[in-house]
Amino acid sequence: MKKIAVIGGGTGSFVVLSGLKTHDVDLTSIVTMMDSGGSTGRLRDQLGVLPPGDLRQCLVALSDAPDLWRKLFLYRFTNGDLEGHNFGNIFISALEKVCPDYDTVLETANYVLKTKGRVLPVTYEKATLCVEYENGKVVKGESNIDENKTEHAHIKNAYLEPKIKTNKHVIEYITNADLVVIGPGDLYTSIIPVLLVDGVKEALKNTQAQIVYIMNLMTKSGQTSSYTAKQFLADISRYIGREPEYLIMHSGSIPKFILDWYNKHNEIAVKNDLNGSYTGVVVERDLIDRSGFNQSEADKVTRSILRHDAGKLSKAIMSIAK
Amino acid sequence: MKKIAVIGGGTGSFVVLSGLKTHDVDLTSIVTMMDSGGSTGRLRDQLGVLPPGDLRQCLVALSDAPDLWRKLFLYRFTNGDLEGHNFGNIFISALEKVCPDYDTVLETANYVLKTKGRVLPVTYEKATLCVEYENGKVVKGESNIDENKTEHAHIKNAYLEPKIKTNKHVIEYITNADLVVIGPGDLYTSIIPVLLVDGVKEALKNTQAQIVYIMNLMTKSGQTSSYTAKQFLADISRYIGREPEYLIMHSGSIPKFILDWYNKHNEIAVKNDLNGSYTGVVVERDLIDRSGFNQSEADKVTRSILRHDAGKLSKAIMSIAK
Repeated sequence: MKKIAVIGGGTGSFVVLSGLKTHDVDLTSIVTMMDSGGSTGRLRDQLGVLPPGDLRQCLVALSDAPDLWRKLFLYRFTNGDLEGHNFGNIFISALEKVCPDYDTVLETANYVLKTKGRVLPVTYEKATLCVEYENGKVVKGESNIDENKTEHAHIKNAYLEPKIKTNKHVIEYITNADLVVIGPGDLYTSIIPVLLVDGVKEALKNTQAQIVYIMNLMTKSGQTSSYTAKQFLADISRYIGREPEYLIMHSGSIPKFILDWYNKHNEIAVKNDLNGSYTGVVVERDLIDRSGFNQSEADKVTRSILRHDAGKLSKAIMSIAK
Repeated sequence: MKKIAVIGGGTGSFVVLSGLKTHDVDLTSIVTMMDSGGSTGRLRDQLGVLPPGDLRQCLVALSDAPDLWRKLFLYRFTNGDLEGHNFGNIFISALEKVCPDYDTVLETANYVLKTKGRVLPVTYEKATLCVEYENGKVVKGESNIDENKTEHAHIKNAYLEPKIKTNKHVIEYITNADLVVIGPGDLYTSIIPVLLVDGVKEALKNTQAQIVYIMNLMTKSGQTSSYTAKQFLADISRYIGREPEYLIMHSGSIPKFILDWYNKHNEIAVKNDLNGSYTGVVVERDLIDRSGFNQSEADKVTRSILRHDAGKLSKAIMSIAK
């Protein structure tokens, strides 16, 4: 059985893991632990726990538990003291409070959700994500970076304060993987935060695994404004210390009313400008989830309407794994 | 295997159920659903859910799950948005939000906590507990009654607004029980609220089961001020429509520093003044938990220090069941 490690967090990893779960592979999800916004950020700050949000999404993606459990873990309270908090986040936070160590938190969560494979936080230590833009400006905190959408300068450097270490499980699963899948996801707030944790870059550089980078569909204002494929690839290669052997990229069309919505927010489809400058293999396919599209609903478009399709994406990955 | 139904809520039922769980009996916990204070009250009011607190305590009492689960369900957050909320309460509330009906909530909670036997809310409907004192004063809401400690008048009448019905499971388990255990617990805020739900009194009156009433150790200011055994028995008999066949009562000493603490709050040990006026069987034994007593800690005494001992109490109950 092929061993696949998936690096990232949020909706990107959710889609990749949901798709790969249906194949006969040994899955490890290595999750960013830098989220500082929303329910997760409040729990982190108020309770002193590790941020549970990305972990929760990846746990649910790999869950083979009945639908009810998956629903429960994704349920968000809409009123009162608990408003905005997600039950899964509260569950993981309370577990951290009563468990002797974070390994036990994970064991328990994996057990309850009957996860296929395993979900590993990239670190059990706490740090703040920081970026320095080319204009010299420094922004600290994942959610501050995420929300800094009017920034036109590119990010020159990303780092963690303080320096923190990964854990032995992460090193072990990267080292023994057949394939490491990176992305999709916001480059500087979901992907690079994993790669910055001490020990991860070295493990990725040294593993015998093939590395697959899944290109984002769209640029993101403030962190990858006007980025092309070449720029995404250059940044990711720098933070993993090698060039990925494979690149998976969407090549089909994207409905105009969706592109129009993104354009209004200064975001564009990522262009393939590699033109032979990349020595790896590019897998280009139609990869987007077209099930939710409805031209008449253009008014209701939000950022979340454009997604990779879990089935298409996992097939593209499996074409490499086999 | 003897079938025992336990009626009540809060710490009283917790002690009875924890004790009986270690015996070879078929247990059903029938739980009050009128709690309106603290975390439970806030969840009820803010989320529109049934009050989860008493249910949670009884579930944990019957749980055969690993210690970690029991700890998790009793864990109370001490900071931030979740301050004062108990994880188990949040769990039950979120379940209610995602489950198609309350039977599914219970199935899921019983499954997660691996409860021995079953826990049944006395009703799935919502109502407010009301009492009328002998001086004509009316107080509405369980927590308002609980906190009305300076009231010297006795309670003339308790009722629910609106009238609500019990569910078929409750009727079934009362009807088929060999023994129904009522109490201990605050008479008007934990015990009688169960008996007031439409259908319960009739089921208790008609069941072939022997009824065992466990006398409280102490009176409670504002609801059973200066009550003696005779008065407790009279009230309970009125609300169940028959006299209990058995009465279990503590007969040993209670350390003076504890009595002194209660006296300061106008609460006294319940006196046995039955003198042949009761036709049932009185089981009198030393029943209190003496493990936590420490004269030198008299300063730290709180109401919760005096409890029935789960082992002693369950032995007394089992002496009747056999």
